Amino acid sequence: MTTDAGSSRLTTAEQAALTSGGDFWHSTAVADLPKIMLTDGPHGVRKQIADAGQPGLLASEPATCFPPAVALGSTWDPDLVRRVGEALGEEARAMGVSVLLGPGINLKRSPLGGRNFEYYAEDPLLTGVLATQWVRGLQSRGVGASLKHFAVNSQETDRMRVSADVDERTLREMYLRAFQRVVQQAQPWTVMCSYNRINGVHASQDPWLLTTVLRDEWGFEGLVVSDWGAVVDRVAAVRAGLDLTMPGPDRAGDEALVRAVADGTLDPAALDTAAARMRALVERSVAALDPAASYDADAHHALAREAAGRGIVLLKNDGDLLPLPRQDITIAVIGEHARTPRFQGGGSSQMNPTRLDDALTEITSLSDGPVRFAAGYTADGAGDERLTAEAVDTARHADVAVVFIGTAQETEGADRDTLELPAAQLALVARVAAVNPNTVVVLSHGAVVLTSPWDRDVPALVEGWLLGQAGGGAIADVLFGVVNPSGRLTETIPLKLAHHPSHLDFPGEASHVRYGEGIHVGYRGFDAREQEVAYPFGFGLSYTTFTYGDATATADDGGIEVRVRVTNTGGRDGREVVQVYASLPGSRVRRAVRELKGFTSVAIAAGETADVVVRIDRDDLAYWDPSLRRWAVEGGDYLLAVGASSRDLRCTVTVKVDGDDTRVPLTAESTLGEWLSDPLGGQVLAQAFAAAAAQGGGGLIGMAADPQMFTLMAGVPLSRMAAFPGSPLTLEAIAQLVTAANP
Amino acid sequence: MTTDAGSSRLTTAEQAALTSGGDFWHSTAVADLPKIMLTDGPHGVRKQIADAGQPGLLASEPATCFPPAVALGSTWDPDLVRRVGEALGEEARAMGVSVLLGPGINLKRSPLGGRNFEYYAEDPLLTGVLATQWVRGLQSRGVGASLKHFAVNSQETDRMRVSADVDERTLREMYLRAFQRVVQQAQPWTVMCSYNRINGVHASQDPWLLTTVLRDEWGFEGLVVSDWGAVVDRVAAVRAGLDLTMPGPDRAGDEALVRAVADGTLDPAALDTAAARMRALVERSVAALDPAASYDADAHHALAREAAGRGIVLLKNDGDLLPLPRQDITIAVIGEHARTPRFQGGGSSQMNPTRLDDALTEITSLSDGPVRFAAGYTADGAGDERLTAEAVDTARHADVAVVFIGTAQETEGADRDTLELPAAQLALVARVAAVNPNTVVVLSHGAVVLTSPWDRDVPALVEGWLLGQAGGGAIADVLFGVVNPSGRLTETIPLKLAHHPSHLDFPGEASHVRYGEGIHVGYRGFDAREQEVAYPFGFGLSYTTFTYGDATATADDGGIEVRVRVTNTGGRDGREVVQVYASLPGSRVRRAVRELKGFTSVAIAAGETADVVVRIDRDDLAYWDPSLRRWAVEGGDYLLAVGASSRDLRCTVTVKVDGDDTRVPLTAESTLGEWLSDPLGGQVLAQAFAAAAAQGGGGLIGMAADPQMFTLMAGVPLSRMAAFPGSPLTLEAIAQLVTAANP
Repeated sequence: MTTDAGSSRLTTAEQAALTSGGDFWHSTAVADLPKIMLTDGPHGVRKQIADAGQPGLLASEPATCFPPAVALGSTWDPDLVRRVGEALGEEARAMGVSVLLGPGINLKRSPLGGRNFEYYAEDPLLTGVLATQWVRGLQSRGVGASLKHFAVNSQETDRMRVSADVDERTLREMYLRAFQRVVQQAQPWTVMCSYNRINGVHASQDPWLLTTVLRDEWGFEGLVVSDWGAVVDRVAAVRAGLDLTMPGPDRAGDEALVRAVADGTLDPAALDTAAARMRALVERSVAALDPAASYDADAHHALAREAAGRGIVLLKNDGDLLPLPRQDITIAVIGEHARTPRFQGGGSSQMNPTRLDDALTEITSLSDGPVRFAAGYTADGAGDERLTAEAVDTARHADVAVVFIGTAQETEGADRDTLELPAAQLALVARVAAVNPNTVVVLSHGAVVLTSPWDRDVPALVEGWLLGQAGGGAIADVLFGVVNPSGRLTETIPLKLAHHPSHLDFPGEASHVRYGEGIHVGYRGFDAREQEVAYPFGFGLSYTTFTYGDATATADDGGIEVRVRVTNTGGRDGREVVQVYASLPGSRVRRAVRELKGFTSVAIAAGETADVVVRIDRDDLAYWDPSLRRWAVEGGDYLLAVGASSRDLRCTVTVKVDGDDTRVPLTAESTLGEWLSDPLGGQVLAQAFAAAAAQGGGGLIGMAADPQMFTLMAGVPLSRMAAFPGSPLTLEAIAQLVTAANP
Repeated sequence: MTTDAGSSRLTTAEQAALTSGGDFWHSTAVADLPKIMLTDGPHGVRKQIADAGQPGLLASEPATCFPPAVALGSTWDPDLVRRVGEALGEEARAMGVSVLLGPGINLKRSPLGGRNFEYYAEDPLLTGVLATQWVRGLQSRGVGASLKHFAVNSQETDRMRVSADVDERTLREMYLRAFQRVVQQAQPWTVMCSYNRINGVHASQDPWLLTTVLRDEWGFEGLVVSDWGAVVDRVAAVRAGLDLTMPGPDRAGDEALVRAVADGTLDPAALDTAAARMRALVERSVAALDPAASYDADAHHALAREAAGRGIVLLKNDGDLLPLPRQDITIAVIGEHARTPRFQGGGSSQMNPTRLDDALTEITSLSDGPVRFAAGYTADGAGDERLTAEAVDTARHADVAVVFIGTAQETEGADRDTLELPAAQLALVARVAAVNPNTVVVLSHGAVVLTSPWDRDVPALVEGWLLGQAGGGAIADVLFGVVNPSGRLTETIPLKLAHHPSHLDFPGEASHVRYGEGIHVGYRGFDAREQEVAYPFGFGLSYTTFTYGDATATADDGGIEVRVRVTNTGGRDGREVVQVYASLPGSRVRRAVRELKGFTSVAIAAGETADVVVRIDRDDLAYWDPSLRRWAVEGGDYLLAVGASSRDLRCTVTVKVDGDDTRVPLTAESTLGEWLSDPLGGQVLAQAFAAAAAQGGGGLIGMAADPQMFTLMAGVPLSRMAAFPGSPLTLEAIAQLVTAANP
């Protein structure tokens, strides 16, 4: 059987084969269409060395390991992210890879999420803005992105079965919003559906998600690929809008599709559409392939170092201990992580770097003074009294001690169960700090760890995340001031795990996880609960200082333009990440205390002043109205707070924004209070009451006139009042009122 | 049409009429069945003075206003609650009332809940134990209770439409659990369905709630009555198990029922059953009526005073300022509430007391010294500089100042929007305390108010709730030590509203409210978040002191018996409320940090020691297993903490409890990790893998042997592994494994 759509030359069986993989990493070659390669990312190309008998995560070809998203996101710099995307595109193209499986843009709902290191932020705007540039960069080189994991894949625990139980407003405003932005602004070649269920429905077979929202509402033009193994029911998946099932071959699924078309349970147009999308993907992939393509590994290593340096966040720097002088001091470098870097996480993104810098070598290289090393703990991160004593002794005889500590591993497939750093390493820090007041701690890990209360013991704390293959050099750059740190937290560091908004509902049980904090993800939750934190969202220090002037804001049909003058009042050139948070006092819906609505990373030379402009798109002011079930901009006076973090707001400005029409039509199920508070509805109802009273039917009306009774009656739907004895309202009369109130 | 069940003598039309009210407060007289009266409670009989033209909340006959549930619950004394129930039964019977609409046993989910004053606690065990005795007491006098509002009616906002969106475990363990206890232990004559929806379904027409759970699982034998106006669709309601629709007449609904039976859309057995239950209720009501019944109003007033005194909670008493001497001091009584008491809340429970004591008169009566009064603020609670100045002057010249402050009103129909006391009254407290260090504050209000930070300014703080008609005397009793306070908080007083577990999700929007905190209601949430509070659940001071010995515990098939010796080490007789909290470290499910599992209120004379026994029923150890969808007792070492509040735990004891069988059967959807961790499943699967490996099909098995790969694979359901290329598992093979693993 053939159809007349884009894949008209293919039989149903060929269409079925085309829409499942040919092997673990390729599509199926069918008729005139060759196979194409899709392979893991996102922070480097993981092109596996072929071994048909051993699919999975085995040896891969060398490629540049750029900073994982946890560090790349901390740059808050869309241009830099785009350059990394371009470099990844060049590498993928040089390796014959048509689709690189990234970016990962799930929100960091809980700091325990095992894959957080692959994601950007706990905020959808920041995530979406950065990922849009990553996709644009990648695709500018003829390599397709795969926006993943669509959607609400916020945990590893039970990830193939768990249902993320989330209300629609939270879905729209938080968990889908970054996907929406990237789809609409960058049109990724592919979107990857996630393993989990959403409100009970597998993402891989959810027609609302894959077709209604993704295509009909957002206008996605590309292909939906499954996460590897995410398809439960191939027919249901194709029916829902899933185009390519990976990995393959999936002969049983192919046959099920053919049967379903034959027996009429699957509309042939659905399979035809999927096949046509595969054809389009293969054709654009083939057109972009260039056997002569190559890339400059040294330049990419340098870019990896630049990005890593920009992703480092300076959390604490009492007494300006940092940057360190490059001469005349003895430095004790302590901690195995300085010699054996943790630079990426485990799982599908784990790749084979072209080179690997370590901090110890790089510090030694940048310093003209003596650098002495002590491992401090064992290779697996455990405590060892001999190593500890040696480290303390090394620190005692140095001018400065730089202690590298970190987690042992974060990996796809497993969430963490604690935010604590290894106790032995914290004990090491305490002992080193006790003998050397000039102690700097450098952290290596993939997602939030607790910094309290131990950080009070050290004057300087450097958040080094997982920084990719050039992270060792980047850390040295920051320590010595070659790079003036400008990274900012994309996730809140809490004082305790118990304070985290997700704490009561992570990772769920019995294959359900309630997103109980709703829209109050990350800093939104800490702010709503007036909870103290260790370091807030958006926070990061610099070696210079910035002062803010007054902000101004002007609104137009397209959104809001915020302007503020920022002066570098310190002695060093630096970058400031200017952040704009919005709130709407008196909003008709529950809102976060403040939400990031715009930001920009600006380089400002010492002593200079920059006129900083931050643009807020009107779309980003919209909330999802749960009554109207659509996006709406509420009119009113928006309060914009401009600052250097979510809790370091330097100035505010109010701007009036005209709203969309958000009147909810009155119905028989609208309450008496809703009728009376609506201008037209109140008028219509008052007339009806007056008429009834004139005819002596006033019992209920008389009651409503009494304030105490009105309290009891205001919440009663009109239809229910019709059932009360003595009511002047009949269902027929209410129907007439509804017509009159909604002209 | 007639049927052969209990109402066989009635036609369908008569059955329909019988199952709706005859007027606002009576059932319909049908055939041989007279009408009976159902009327509001719960803390007093509100028998409305008849006025057919003006239904609603108008003048009612005098009856004793006992302390509303907020104060009665604070006694933590089931025996005392039972005596109040008996007295209410006597009054109802004397007034010809057959069903008194109470007790109200919804959980206090949010302190803002407008009807919290009608409910007992934020804990289901405490609520259930007290309400069981209330029902037993009432019904012992031939008057039926109406257990309300069934169920999850935790707010007034949009109460007739709002859907309480709650997962089943939370429903079972928290919001339904007190209902279950009272139904099973006291068989109330009636249960009243609530206005709201639960997970989208109106309580009045929810067959799962009204039939499956209430009757089939719990064995309820009585009648389900609607809350007044709660029925949306009469046919759906009867089909679901609702028996009596109130108020009436509801001719349109009666006719709809007759039509539905005629056209086959309603099984006649459903209507027949409802009519039979009405017959049973009327017959038992008629049998209990006694025209000669009367009650002793003076004795009931005395009981109201006793109960009120026992419900008062002493929150703070620095330097033993209280009790006050009855001689030789000048007392300044300040605050309009001392003269014009707030003693009950607004709405359907607001009744007409037989007498009304005020604190000013009662203090004057008990004191032999001079008592001087100043109103301090206006009659509506607002500030007034002249009144304030007068109050400060009065306080300045007294030995002790007792300042009465409180909220203006709490009422059915409206939730509060703040926990703050009126600012003018707090300013008054500050100014009085500034001139008189011996300042006592007495609070009058229906639900939690913030006590921080202003309570640091006063040495003594008395929580006076709403105390009913004899509250004034009860306050005087406590102030002078005629009563040694023993009331305990049944709800946590937070430092801020923002800290409350319900804060992010109350009262919801667009007619949905997510119960996002799940099982972590009230103190469970504060404990889980390690949140400081102003005064914890279970807290209350005494004029004497109690010390605890070591606890012992023994488990048997029926539960656990906890024993502890408690000594009154102070100089006054007193009562201690001994509380037992349980936890199960390492539980298979998420649990609250600790849960109240038993308590007892014990009178101990000065210097005496009591052997206190607290019994925990095995049923109360059960959790609702969301995988098995049934109650189960998990086996293990339960940690029991015994103390004077949820955060004043004096001793702990561990006791081993044998568990129910809670093995979840293995299926094709069970993950590899679940299979391998099950003793039998692991064995069966290992054999299958070994057989496959012997035949060379080892790719997937080889991967699983690698620890890093196992992390990725452990969460994969067996059925999904069958779809992976190279898998040795076919769907047929898995089916055989399932059979073998679940003998």
